[in-house]
Amino acid sequence: MFLVDRGQVQRGITQLLVAHKVPEKDAAIVGYELVRAEAMGVASHGVIRAMEYVGDIDAGRTQPESDVKVVGGAGQVAVVDCSWSLGIVAAHEALTIAIEAARLSKISAIVTRRCNHVNRLGAYVERAARLGFICVATAAVPQKRYANVVPWGGSEVRLGTNPLAFAFPTTGDPIVADFATSVIADGKVRTAFLNGVTLPPDAVVDATGRVTTDPAKFYGPPPGALLPFGGRVGYKGYALGLLVELLGGTLGGCSIEDEDRGVNGVFFCVIDPTGFLPAGGYEQLGQEVVDSMHSARPAPGYERVLVPGETEFETLAEAERGTAIKIGEGVWQALLDVTRAANVNLDSAVIGTTS
Amino acid sequence: MFLVDRGQVQRGITQLLVAHKVPEKDAAIVGYELVRAEAMGVASHGVIRAMEYVGDIDAGRTQPESDVKVVGGAGQVAVVDCSWSLGIVAAHEALTIAIEAARLSKISAIVTRRCNHVNRLGAYVERAARLGFICVATAAVPQKRYANVVPWGGSEVRLGTNPLAFAFPTTGDPIVADFATSVIADGKVRTAFLNGVTLPPDAVVDATGRVTTDPAKFYGPPPGALLPFGGRVGYKGYALGLLVELLGGTLGGCSIEDEDRGVNGVFFCVIDPTGFLPAGGYEQLGQEVVDSMHSARPAPGYERVLVPGETEFETLAEAERGTAIKIGEGVWQALLDVTRAANVNLDSAVIGTTS
Repeated sequence: MFLVDRGQVQRGITQLLVAHKVPEKDAAIVGYELVRAEAMGVASHGVIRAMEYVGDIDAGRTQPESDVKVVGGAGQVAVVDCSWSLGIVAAHEALTIAIEAARLSKISAIVTRRCNHVNRLGAYVERAARLGFICVATAAVPQKRYANVVPWGGSEVRLGTNPLAFAFPTTGDPIVADFATSVIADGKVRTAFLNGVTLPPDAVVDATGRVTTDPAKFYGPPPGALLPFGGRVGYKGYALGLLVELLGGTLGGCSIEDEDRGVNGVFFCVIDPTGFLPAGGYEQLGQEVVDSMHSARPAPGYERVLVPGETEFETLAEAERGTAIKIGEGVWQALLDVTRAANVNLDSAVIGTTS
Repeated sequence: MFLVDRGQVQRGITQLLVAHKVPEKDAAIVGYELVRAEAMGVASHGVIRAMEYVGDIDAGRTQPESDVKVVGGAGQVAVVDCSWSLGIVAAHEALTIAIEAARLSKISAIVTRRCNHVNRLGAYVERAARLGFICVATAAVPQKRYANVVPWGGSEVRLGTNPLAFAFPTTGDPIVADFATSVIADGKVRTAFLNGVTLPPDAVVDATGRVTTDPAKFYGPPPGALLPFGGRVGYKGYALGLLVELLGGTLGGCSIEDEDRGVNGVFFCVIDPTGFLPAGGYEQLGQEVVDSMHSARPAPGYERVLVPGETEFETLAEAERGTAIKIGEGVWQALLDVTRAANVNLDSAVIGTTS
């Protein structure tokens, strides 16, 4: 792993995107989010995505100068057409609209169409919670392009890994949960495949629908699939995967079989807790929930009981005590290649190497 | 099992409740819901609850003549004080308020306080969906009275089985999911214990936090606990259990340690899909999701792929083709005892016996 200067990487990604026609303020948002995810230890949603987004722009799949437009909605709900702009930028705009509506009527919802990859849902719900709102977010992954999860009892893919996230304010960091409704993400299958290791025994089925620990069976041919999470009660994870499709796809007016509906059909529901507790105090009550969980005696093999998001915030705080973040060698080389091609120089960002 | 006349049982439960001071229209709602749950095959939330509710009234824990009052809220959200009235009746009133608010502004939310047992969340979300609304519901079970689930990585209980439900309209029966955020409900542990059978290997831990298949270890002393659902990724089920507490407890202004906050802290979020799709068509799009799932080839050991709620609706339709429902012998005897004591005669309701 390389140890690299956080600020330089963030500026480098911003400049890289600007060189690929991204408006500067939008590029800065993406640079910030990718480096922050990396610093939180979520490398799958970190710097590695810069190359993907640049590739999408160059291929015309992302149109960074397009505008986000409200195209439907009534009362305190809206549908926004993201017009194939950068997904992270579009989703932040959608969330801003939803937050302003929630200020007014205490609850709101918004659904995106033609939205590109929005990256970590946790980033959005966290932002809402730090502004004092509760937020639930889902991102439907379109079936025709990315289905890799079987419905419960099935042996053919019908859903994506359809993540779900929520955040609730406390007196400290908010509670932030963000997870796929499959047991594992497909990226973890690829890592196991490339490293020649077996999979956990509950995550993947082969093309006949039988559970397998062999990552090669996921790729086939014929290809296998991911299982919805829940193990023996995986029908619960399946139900949640369906909910994500229904909120982020169906509710936005998209057929499950629509091939051109966007990479992520995002649904945000924002709640202003002052609608329920006008005198405030909900952060304190949220903190009491956190404290109650922390007070539980750990099970064998665990040092302590955490709440969702806590590990990521601790990793981030550790990173922010210094100036460096760790980046895998392959990702760093790829970033150097793509930045050099755009005349952005990151050579001096490397501080050292680490394990 | 006894085969008994559905209509007679429903009237009998209604009369039983009236004899225990329940206003007639409220008693009729509870009679309807309990018999319908039984006819759906959900015996754990069926006729067996009639005895519990009568016991709660006699003990003063339920005050059937109390009113549901809106005690807080702004914009399109509200807090209702159920004043220890019958939980099923109170939750239906809360849902009615939320639906009317959602008609106006296309989205609404409501939280209950001092609410008794509301029984199947699926009944409420289904009702909303049959009126054309999307509904998400959660019911927080208070920690101090009913905690029986460990947080992820913990060996002490901190949460209840905290169920979550949602429904979405289609052109046929709505999609209706309703499940505990623990692997299994505590009722299933009791059944295994009474029948002397072992538990599945992923559901229960002993008092030290180690997984056990021995149902006696759940009761102790010292008592064990249920695990959040998800198996190896049970931190996802834990996160959902927390969400249920945060929405149904914290948001309503209750501390997690409040001992007197109600049996079920219910949260309903109601969405009017015509806010997003003014021209309608969302039932058809919802049906396409159902059809897509149905079209998946089954996995070995499964006859077909279903959507959530489908099994219950098929069981109900089968029951409604005749006049009889099946009721377990112990439950039937208990109902006869309690109805006789109230001068309600159900002797002639028995049509026969079945396996």
